[in-house]
Amino acid sequence: MVERAGVDAILRGLAEPTRRAIVERLGRGPATVSEVAKPFDITLAAVVQHLQVLEECGLIRTEKVGRVRTCRLEPGGLEALADWIAARRTPAERRLDRLGEVLARGGRPEGPRQTDEQP
Amino acid sequence: MVERAGVDAILRGLAEPTRRAIVERLGRGPATVSEVAKPFDITLAAVVQHLQVLEECGLIRTEKVGRVRTCRLEPGGLEALADWIAARRTPAERRLDRLGEVLARGGRPEGPRQTDEQP
Repeated sequence: MVERAGVDAILRGLAEPTRRAIVERLGRGPATVSEVAKPFDITLAAVVQHLQVLEECGLIRTEKVGRVRTCRLEPGGLEALADWIAARRTPAERRLDRLGEVLARGGRPEGPRQTDEQP
Repeated sequence: MVERAGVDAILRGLAEPTRRAIVERLGRGPATVSEVAKPFDITLAAVVQHLQVLEECGLIRTEKVGRVRTCRLEPGGLEALADWIAARRTPAERRLDRLGEVLARGGRPEGPRQTDEQP
């Protein structure tokens, strides 16, 4: 699901430092709007606006039960951006990845096969 | 190398659609400044400015040989952002990853061992 609109929306959502900090906070678990707002030196209205932007770009979801609105990360909300980054890896990086795999196998160019050869 | 300054700079760099398109273009290989500028309906000066921002946030590098400046992706330039995204995966996503691994092994909770049992 690498689609331009999704990636653009995610980047717009994350480009604002307070919104990125909110995503980091919710990465540690769900929180009410006032819990989210606590560490920030901005009005509750401003926090609610940031939450709306994050919800619109699919990064978080909020749910109101009684008078309390709880916010949580949207599972998979960052995947479109992760896919976009993965598709941008340079050929040199892909070669380095393969070299890393070879070295992890003890320098053998193929599979992790181990024989019981005696010295 | 998940460090706040790096991630903020990368997000600032990518949040502008033209700059993201430039990164996509350079993902297909190095290009001169005029090659980069070609598909965009903006002045060469504006393109050069975007390239400077991308260079400052470590996403690309440019090199001038004679009168031609060539631009290429900076290997690893997106890694700080990729690491930041990976750290934001929700516990539910991590559980789904593990479930996916189990299913890929044919539903066995441990290793990919296959026996030659006869029916």
